[in-house]
Amino acid sequence: MNRPLHVVDAIIASLITGFVLLLVGLPPAFGQEPLASWNDTQAKARIMKFVEETVKQGGDGYVVPEDRIAVFDNDGTLWSEQPYYVQLGFALDRVKTLAPQHPEWKAKEPFRSILEGNLKDAAKGGEKGIVEVVMATHGGMTTDQFNAIVDTWFETAKHPKTGRPYTEMTYQPMRELLDYLRSNGFTTYIVSGGGVEFMRPITEKLYGVPPQQVVGSTILTQYAIVGDIPVLKRLPKIDFVDDGPGKPAGINKFIGRKPIFIAGNSDGDYEMARWTTAAKGPGFAMIVHHTDADREYAYDRQSPFGKLDKALDEAEKRNWLVVDMKNDWKKIFSFEQ
Amino acid sequence: MNRPLHVVDAIIASLITGFVLLLVGLPPAFGQEPLASWNDTQAKARIMKFVEETVKQGGDGYVVPEDRIAVFDNDGTLWSEQPYYVQLGFALDRVKTLAPQHPEWKAKEPFRSILEGNLKDAAKGGEKGIVEVVMATHGGMTTDQFNAIVDTWFETAKHPKTGRPYTEMTYQPMRELLDYLRSNGFTTYIVSGGGVEFMRPITEKLYGVPPQQVVGSTILTQYAIVGDIPVLKRLPKIDFVDDGPGKPAGINKFIGRKPIFIAGNSDGDYEMARWTTAAKGPGFAMIVHHTDADREYAYDRQSPFGKLDKALDEAEKRNWLVVDMKNDWKKIFSFEQ
Repeated sequence: MNRPLHVVDAIIASLITGFVLLLVGLPPAFGQEPLASWNDTQAKARIMKFVEETVKQGGDGYVVPEDRIAVFDNDGTLWSEQPYYVQLGFALDRVKTLAPQHPEWKAKEPFRSILEGNLKDAAKGGEKGIVEVVMATHGGMTTDQFNAIVDTWFETAKHPKTGRPYTEMTYQPMRELLDYLRSNGFTTYIVSGGGVEFMRPITEKLYGVPPQQVVGSTILTQYAIVGDIPVLKRLPKIDFVDDGPGKPAGINKFIGRKPIFIAGNSDGDYEMARWTTAAKGPGFAMIVHHTDADREYAYDRQSPFGKLDKALDEAEKRNWLVVDMKNDWKKIFSFEQ
Repeated sequence: MNRPLHVVDAIIASLITGFVLLLVGLPPAFGQEPLASWNDTQAKARIMKFVEETVKQGGDGYVVPEDRIAVFDNDGTLWSEQPYYVQLGFALDRVKTLAPQHPEWKAKEPFRSILEGNLKDAAKGGEKGIVEVVMATHGGMTTDQFNAIVDTWFETAKHPKTGRPYTEMTYQPMRELLDYLRSNGFTTYIVSGGGVEFMRPITEKLYGVPPQQVVGSTILTQYAIVGDIPVLKRLPKIDFVDDGPGKPAGINKFIGRKPIFIAGNSDGDYEMARWTTAAKGPGFAMIVHHTDADREYAYDRQSPFGKLDKALDEAEKRNWLVVDMKNDWKKIFSFEQ
């Protein structure tokens, strides 16, 4: 009985060994073709070439894992920003929800026009009006309360054109790119003009990016004791705008390392693209160009949301990759047929 | 030949399997006794009890790994803050280094007194004087230049009492505590009143805490193009003070999760201790009490650096652990005999 048992042991042991080694040795994305929703165009090839070089030990392009920092803009880069930013949709809904507590809004712009569903007139107040709406809808509660409000809103809010939950309006090829970078040892961050506390409740679920890897605009908070319980109150006052020249500053402040890979889609990403690609050592910048009016939207230089002008002009000269959504992406949204 | 080979295979395979399973299954700190420099007192027992409960699946105190956030104050908690903050030592040295470029300092307080080595008179200018010194020594250069200045300074700067490099003035028991928490799935952060860009160049080496896990006070930076190269300029203007009520705000802003474990040593840590231990679910706060005038320093309520008064009064009532350095720590510094 001894020998045959050993043989069985051997087979079982080998199987276990093989399986364990497989689990230990393989990148997380094993079994999936990387960037499966990307067409086999120059864009995909350039991204993969860069990543392969960063992981190739001994090569000129090698980067140690702790410096493999990749940062992604959110609006228009990871999810749709048309016909208006998701966070603006949130603010508009909040105005409607809060209106019964604010009878004065019926006579006060831009609240009046928002409540009447007239966004064109609401926009006439310019930046001052927008700031008033943001402050009225994003300030005045504790951070815990705001988290809960955001969570609840995302459960039911729908995109005005597709009727899909906003959480389905993410770009499949970009989620694959996040996965691909992570499977190659990159740490992925979001660096967005959007409010950091608006994004953090959902970024892990949508993109696999945990709260501490989300950099964004902030409003001031204040520690206070309410009924013997310490809370943080969100004040109606902007603290930091994480857009344009604010993005390199935000990256430096929150992350403290320079990225080697940035992805954006607008002039708001111009400065972080320059900062990243001018640094010593490897640096890659990509700009998502919205060219697909059928499957998503087509816009660039004239758009009020995600204006892409200067960065588009300088992309070639600076060797930034311009991704043509129509031609480079097989699929945009995961719900597409 | 077939059977014996199978047997050999079996043995080899079993060995490999066992070894791989060992590597996969064990915490990183295997082989070292945790908290080896702590005496077997109540303090060590309470810390270990809390940590063991957070990792015990199915228990009341269980916390999922992504929520195992531990934050540590730096000055007086991880390294010595006497006779003055390390960063103040840096600023004083910078004043001396920069003096030839600032002949006006010979007639201007507090610079004059600093250059004469008269710290008592230098301190008479109060907070206004300190801010002037910080701005003159911490602003006006790019972030890359400042990093290099900090790196160079730490290579040679010595503690005024021990004559040891500042980098050796860290507390061995606290470094063991960081290791112990990390080996139990915690992510460890520094949350300090010190400047974030002063700490980041050294925290990985000293504590195993990478730059992106360091929260601190910040000064404003500004994106600028210098000779066609994008840089971040450090402006002589405070952006955020990460102390007292600023600590919960800083944690919320930078990390976006509530810690379940905080370590501090002064009233500057009071608010984050309350915020952490009042939250739902498990929460642990510890206060390092400087009670050892022989091996380090003894100070609390009257100290200009690391004043510990209110937090000490309320520790028992709030169930915060007060660590008595003299009695709870076998060893304070690694260079001790």
